[in-house]
Amino acid sequence: MALISIIENFKPKNDEKLLRRAEQLRPVIYRKKVKPAGVFRLKDRYSREIVSIPGNTFQDIVLGKGDNICLDFGDHHVGRLFLELAGKGSHPDAPAFIKLKFAETLAELSENSMEYDGWVSSSWIQEEYIHADTLPAAVSPRRRYAFRYLKITVIDTSPKYKLTISDVFINTETSADDKAVLPAYKGDEELSAIYSMCQRTIRNCMQEVFEDGPKRDRRLWTGDLRLQALANYATYGNNDLVKRCLYLFAGSRFPDGKVAACVFTDPEPAADDTCIYDYMLFFAAALCEYFEETGDREALKDLYGIAQEQIDIALRTVDANGIVHGEELGTVFVDWSEGLHKDAAAQGILIYAVGYAVKLALHNGDRKRAEYLEKKNNLFRSAARKYFWDSDRACFVSGGQAALATQVWMVLAGCASGEEAAAIFERADDFSCECTMMTPYMHHYYIMALLSCGRKEQALGHIRWYWGSMVKAGFDTCPETWVPEDPSASPYGGTAVNSYCHAWSCTPVWILKKYF
Amino acid sequence: MALISIIENFKPKNDEKLLRRAEQLRPVIYRKKVKPAGVFRLKDRYSREIVSIPGNTFQDIVLGKGDNICLDFGDHHVGRLFLELAGKGSHPDAPAFIKLKFAETLAELSENSMEYDGWVSSSWIQEEYIHADTLPAAVSPRRRYAFRYLKITVIDTSPKYKLTISDVFINTETSADDKAVLPAYKGDEELSAIYSMCQRTIRNCMQEVFEDGPKRDRRLWTGDLRLQALANYATYGNNDLVKRCLYLFAGSRFPDGKVAACVFTDPEPAADDTCIYDYMLFFAAALCEYFEETGDREALKDLYGIAQEQIDIALRTVDANGIVHGEELGTVFVDWSEGLHKDAAAQGILIYAVGYAVKLALHNGDRKRAEYLEKKNNLFRSAARKYFWDSDRACFVSGGQAALATQVWMVLAGCASGEEAAAIFERADDFSCECTMMTPYMHHYYIMALLSCGRKEQALGHIRWYWGSMVKAGFDTCPETWVPEDPSASPYGGTAVNSYCHAWSCTPVWILKKYF
Repeated sequence: MALISIIENFKPKNDEKLLRRAEQLRPVIYRKKVKPAGVFRLKDRYSREIVSIPGNTFQDIVLGKGDNICLDFGDHHVGRLFLELAGKGSHPDAPAFIKLKFAETLAELSENSMEYDGWVSSSWIQEEYIHADTLPAAVSPRRRYAFRYLKITVIDTSPKYKLTISDVFINTETSADDKAVLPAYKGDEELSAIYSMCQRTIRNCMQEVFEDGPKRDRRLWTGDLRLQALANYATYGNNDLVKRCLYLFAGSRFPDGKVAACVFTDPEPAADDTCIYDYMLFFAAALCEYFEETGDREALKDLYGIAQEQIDIALRTVDANGIVHGEELGTVFVDWSEGLHKDAAAQGILIYAVGYAVKLALHNGDRKRAEYLEKKNNLFRSAARKYFWDSDRACFVSGGQAALATQVWMVLAGCASGEEAAAIFERADDFSCECTMMTPYMHHYYIMALLSCGRKEQALGHIRWYWGSMVKAGFDTCPETWVPEDPSASPYGGTAVNSYCHAWSCTPVWILKKYF
Repeated sequence: MALISIIENFKPKNDEKLLRRAEQLRPVIYRKKVKPAGVFRLKDRYSREIVSIPGNTFQDIVLGKGDNICLDFGDHHVGRLFLELAGKGSHPDAPAFIKLKFAETLAELSENSMEYDGWVSSSWIQEEYIHADTLPAAVSPRRRYAFRYLKITVIDTSPKYKLTISDVFINTETSADDKAVLPAYKGDEELSAIYSMCQRTIRNCMQEVFEDGPKRDRRLWTGDLRLQALANYATYGNNDLVKRCLYLFAGSRFPDGKVAACVFTDPEPAADDTCIYDYMLFFAAALCEYFEETGDREALKDLYGIAQEQIDIALRTVDANGIVHGEELGTVFVDWSEGLHKDAAAQGILIYAVGYAVKLALHNGDRKRAEYLEKKNNLFRSAARKYFWDSDRACFVSGGQAALATQVWMVLAGCASGEEAAAIFERADDFSCECTMMTPYMHHYYIMALLSCGRKEQALGHIRWYWGSMVKAGFDTCPETWVPEDPSASPYGGTAVNSYCHAWSCTPVWILKKYF
């Protein structure tokens, strides 16, 4: 997730007790030394053409002015680079000036960051410029990077010497404990590959919080957390990390009580001045699932009120017709699809979240609240049928548009179910054409909608097609946005800032284990 | 000095005892905090057009994507930058990515380093790219820089916030002790300004060794040392620093005993594989002057043999006609002038250096050596008269060229003196036109030649004209190369790598005090 919202003079409301608890839950970071698995180079600076250097290791390479060498660390990693450079030739008489480019994918390696001009900050592009005044030099950029490939370009040495690499490795970082990982899903080759890509993704996004992406934005988003937690339950089971994140969201909120879309953790925990309607509501879902996974009554007690408060805040935007107006609270996200009409989806998301609030109320022995919310939801479902169901087309229509995302949220809300819902998804391709879903996040909810109306085979087929196409495209981890027909799609005005390891995209680890 | 010489598999011959002595003499570094004296900005990225920001201090500036701010620290400094950045607006949601450009002169600020394509390494260009992941951030590049101006360009923040500078200062570094500085030369306003510029220059080049320039090449050269030592005697009197440098040159030499043109000090002392004929010979002059300044018998005892050895090495290249062939030993430098014919100057330099070797021998009670060398020099002078004196033109001619540099070295060698020499320098402008002297280093020897034949007024006039033109051009310190009629002259294929604080250029501090 990346979204720009600006509220002048925003001051989050902090609860020091909750934030202290979050701090106590700060995870251990596991580190591992990883050496390059191969070397190659690009034909020239921004060329995509790879020149292989057969039989060579990085120690064999000698780099002069303008030369580049690319190291392949064999898989996607998050961590810090250690590089030892030496001079070859006469005694170095000038600094070595090098550029490091860290890339999650091969294509990224050859991108010219100067050309990126989108709305997300170009400062996320993973590059470093380094002078080594004395050689040999141990070079170790302070920043953590997410990458499989590293391109080292020598901007200059001097006519008297060239550079060699005497050592290079990544010290990887994650709060996922490889020793505690749950057994992998054993499917056929295709599903195993998908599972493995997804597990790698959640692992590398598990840092001091669940990061949306370790390349970009490196921070905690509510809606992402809900899916990250599911992926975690199926793999690394670091449930304290989920708890920590829930407490962070609860501990720093909007002055009016809303859970922010994102919480910053550095230098101090602080809610972002961004409210995403969907994300605010998913806090209840995330808490409910966390409790069901762990039975942690402390968390339920501490956070129950805040979860219900989010629902109440949303309920206040429901009009006399029973239709919610999420846009009054902040952005209604749903998906990065351009042109998606979101009214029906927003209604579906409310009903869906209220469903989790009901379950939470029951877990907390709050039967009255549960009944109250159930009643509300029945009204909202009727309103949804009245305003969004198109009986001629036998599907849901929002603003004249029958997008697949709209069907998904209406079905997940129970506005259609069983045969009726199944019939909708038989025609999924038609709706998809009307407005293409752009994110694996949205595709997750599509799978869940398919499963909810018994279309298990279609769900598995979709996992094979959608996540399988990521594997085929060579991803080690799941990209943030992915349209198989348009691999260079980016909601950010350029792929240079795309994140190729994004935890909202890796839920098949959970889906496969739970449903297949 | 900067010069490219490459000798394959060069291994310097080290004398651990001498190097240990050099290590013991490592100087104290004095530090001082310096805050900016003013702020301005450049109209755009590579514009020379200054936009003043009246009344503002750096704290008032707010910088968004693409903005720049220039800080003026009031004078030339060498040291490390400390910068404290803060965010303004919403909570920073992306790193700040900034570029720092350190400049000794205003013109340097607007130079595009990507355009430099000369033979000296562009890695000397003083630039840093820095990501600040969290704000507020204390930014402190590891490298030491030489600068008066600092341009901070914001490459990107994010639409959610801009940058402010909450603090910035230089922690200056020099081994010149401001508390121990000798009284300044008191001349008229013009000469005082020249003195002050020169004193600043030697001060800022005094680091762990005498550096040729603290921007570039940041290291010790023999011929430079000889002049640096003179400037030091007249100002900071850090004679142990001169001694340390003499021991470094003596401690790591060519395998055949030659003193190298340059000695590296990091990571270990090591002679460069560069021999400059003139520089090798000036070791004797530097040692002789050091002894005369300090009476240090330890240094005389330790280094006398090595100084005489340099002379003997040069003597072996003298042919049957009594003409030296310095090019057999390495580069004959003389000056950066293009097209200068150097045979006569090389002969003059030999005779001049032998003169110092004679004095050294006498200081060391080695009368036999002194007599031997005196005899040699008489032969060399006769040969010089025979081969280089053109009686029709009444001047010295080398390869058909009557360059001023040629006259200077022939006069300093005593091949012409008194009235005859004075008559040559009456026509100095003619010779200068034939081949323009490019460096203050060569101009120093010109002044010394003028003084040697009684043309004191012309010498002072030349100081006023030549060094005065640097003051008028706005320099705080003396540039490495300077042709008043062609301010953008560079021997390196571009001014971007020119050094504007170069200690071989600052001898007027010594000349003015000694002769005026």
